[in-house]
Amino acid sequence: MAVGKDTFPVLPAIEGVRLGTAMAGIKTPGRRDLVVIEIAPGATVAGVFTRNAFCAAPVHVAKRHLALETPRYLLINTGNANAGTGDLGMRDAEASCAELGRLADVAGTAVLPFSTGVIGEPLPMQRLLAGLPDAIDSLDADGWVAAAEGILTTDTRPKGATTRVEIGGETVTISGISKGSGMIQPNMATMLGFVATDASIAQADLEAWLREGVARSFNCITVDSDTSTNDACMLIATGHGPAVTTDADVARFRAALDALLVELAQAIIRDGEGATKFVTLEVSEAQSRQEALDVAFTVAHSPLVKTALYASDANWGRILAAVGRAPVADFDVDKVVIDLGEVRLVEHGGRADSYTEEAGSAVMAGEEIVIRIRLGRGEAAATVWTSDLSHEYVSINADYRS
Amino acid sequence: MAVGKDTFPVLPAIEGVRLGTAMAGIKTPGRRDLVVIEIAPGATVAGVFTRNAFCAAPVHVAKRHLALETPRYLLINTGNANAGTGDLGMRDAEASCAELGRLADVAGTAVLPFSTGVIGEPLPMQRLLAGLPDAIDSLDADGWVAAAEGILTTDTRPKGATTRVEIGGETVTISGISKGSGMIQPNMATMLGFVATDASIAQADLEAWLREGVARSFNCITVDSDTSTNDACMLIATGHGPAVTTDADVARFRAALDALLVELAQAIIRDGEGATKFVTLEVSEAQSRQEALDVAFTVAHSPLVKTALYASDANWGRILAAVGRAPVADFDVDKVVIDLGEVRLVEHGGRADSYTEEAGSAVMAGEEIVIRIRLGRGEAAATVWTSDLSHEYVSINADYRS
Repeated sequence: MAVGKDTFPVLPAIEGVRLGTAMAGIKTPGRRDLVVIEIAPGATVAGVFTRNAFCAAPVHVAKRHLALETPRYLLINTGNANAGTGDLGMRDAEASCAELGRLADVAGTAVLPFSTGVIGEPLPMQRLLAGLPDAIDSLDADGWVAAAEGILTTDTRPKGATTRVEIGGETVTISGISKGSGMIQPNMATMLGFVATDASIAQADLEAWLREGVARSFNCITVDSDTSTNDACMLIATGHGPAVTTDADVARFRAALDALLVELAQAIIRDGEGATKFVTLEVSEAQSRQEALDVAFTVAHSPLVKTALYASDANWGRILAAVGRAPVADFDVDKVVIDLGEVRLVEHGGRADSYTEEAGSAVMAGEEIVIRIRLGRGEAAATVWTSDLSHEYVSINADYRS
Repeated sequence: MAVGKDTFPVLPAIEGVRLGTAMAGIKTPGRRDLVVIEIAPGATVAGVFTRNAFCAAPVHVAKRHLALETPRYLLINTGNANAGTGDLGMRDAEASCAELGRLADVAGTAVLPFSTGVIGEPLPMQRLLAGLPDAIDSLDADGWVAAAEGILTTDTRPKGATTRVEIGGETVTISGISKGSGMIQPNMATMLGFVATDASIAQADLEAWLREGVARSFNCITVDSDTSTNDACMLIATGHGPAVTTDADVARFRAALDALLVELAQAIIRDGEGATKFVTLEVSEAQSRQEALDVAFTVAHSPLVKTALYASDANWGRILAAVGRAPVADFDVDKVVIDLGEVRLVEHGGRADSYTEEAGSAVMAGEEIVIRIRLGRGEAAATVWTSDLSHEYVSINADYRS
């Protein structure tokens, strides 16, 4: 199940980036499960990673390598997360980088590893290493679609987005791919996201723009409140195009980048495990952005709200109860206003006088639902995207390893 | 579905307490949905209530009346929560108390109202008031079983517990009933719990003992992380028996009371919506009890852990990932030790060398599962009880109003 149309856009080549894939049989034979992204010299590269304390070996290694030098290769495998694998997992991640470095004639520290899949199983190193030559041989500037497919796990469809923006009279392209549909409450980034542009961007700017963009995109989505051990999002600026330096150019570039990150993040929710609804939670009039996020995530995580959404049941009492248990001090419920689409649900501490079941049900019948919550406490706001909780979600996760 | 045997104990009469029920047809005709508990003069009564900011009208009214005088009657209806009902809800709750007071010849403020059921619908006052005479007529010291049935909603079975303790050479009885199986993460009390003893206990002691007992029983259970708008737990000491005053008697009485509260709280989890597993999470070696609770609830709320429990799948990586995202500062995962029953799952940051799938699967196959998590940070501990996430849970909550 997934919400909305399955349309993968045409991702144009980004000069300075090539992508290759292979079928290494990491977990299942006959599917793309190994991806190599090659970055030409002269690029800048930024990354954000999961905050899960039990983060995976590749996350440790990628962070260490990224601090040492500008990466030349990203190496991604699916089918195995190399998480909870202790010292062996660290050695395996390092050895993967070293072997790709040897084949591509760069230092092992110029390779960043990424893994996604089952937690706690040792990486099948022999199969992974044997797949590297194929991945390198297939490196291609037009390899985006194949790479988008190669990073999937329980996803039902590849996720990509592209946009163009004028910088200093020239056209700059930003393209990206993402994956993830379960264990989704990223806390730094999505499960995996890889974004590249041909613009020329200073390292410090690239890092700041990625961090702030992720905070309002990948860090604002949740399927099931579970934060992966392997989340990572990378942003590559190859520098083949113009530099982004003037205030006007920076504003334009960042607006385009932010919109692209939101599109990739939303694609994960539309493909959330068992998702039949795409739900936008807009919380406003909070005392701080964190407070708005706390309320939005409390509602987004409520199993009772999520099952009501699945049932297309305008059970607004469950929304109200979830808002009421959010961690907000001195909450004056009489000031809270809740709208379901354009229908007023709650005001003055209870159901709005104008509300009718028919109006509420009509909104809930849709595939895309907006819930607006005004707290009447301040001027901060946040938007969070989530999916519903369906039988299919339980089936997927009760059967995943069997 | 429910876990364990459905055995309702024989609850002996508590001198000074009588219970009556009626079929008022609040939501569904032909089932007990109105309960009146009569408390003889001279008792002490303590209560704890939900912290949900959108707490229901009866919670507001019960707290106000409890502050005014020692209650003589508790009035409980199911089928309708009288929550999110604004001013009308407050007037309805007050009017219910006033009418029962009139019939029983006490002040309306000597009656505490409790409601549970659907949120946001007006109370059907005519049917509720019409049921009061029947409930009063049936008042009986042996009315515990009928009352336990009369407070149920989505529960599949009544919940009761009783215990005896020697106080000053005399036998004192403590008995209680509880209800709740969904929207369960009480934050003051269960959905509803009513406990009575014939001991004589000073008001301040009664309040403290209830508050502290609830903190380690009803406040340590979760089915779905949703805190009800209507949670309440009441403790009545009729004073017909001996006074609990010496240190030894207090210790003995409180141990018995605490055990009874835990038994009633666990009964709610065993009957959790769609529950096929009863899961105990013991977190120890934390820096504070709150930290231990934070880790335990993070694991208990993880949909991925809960679906793995449903599948009897020893997917320990999901437990590890949930522990890793708990809100604990400076978490050293190398010190974390996780056991599944008597099987060591995790140590030194990864899967224990001694672990085998066979051993893990054998534990997961059971109906009652204990997960022990040692954080290696301090000496505080907490225990939380939860259930799994099954297809039945989704069905119950997607269909509840339809």
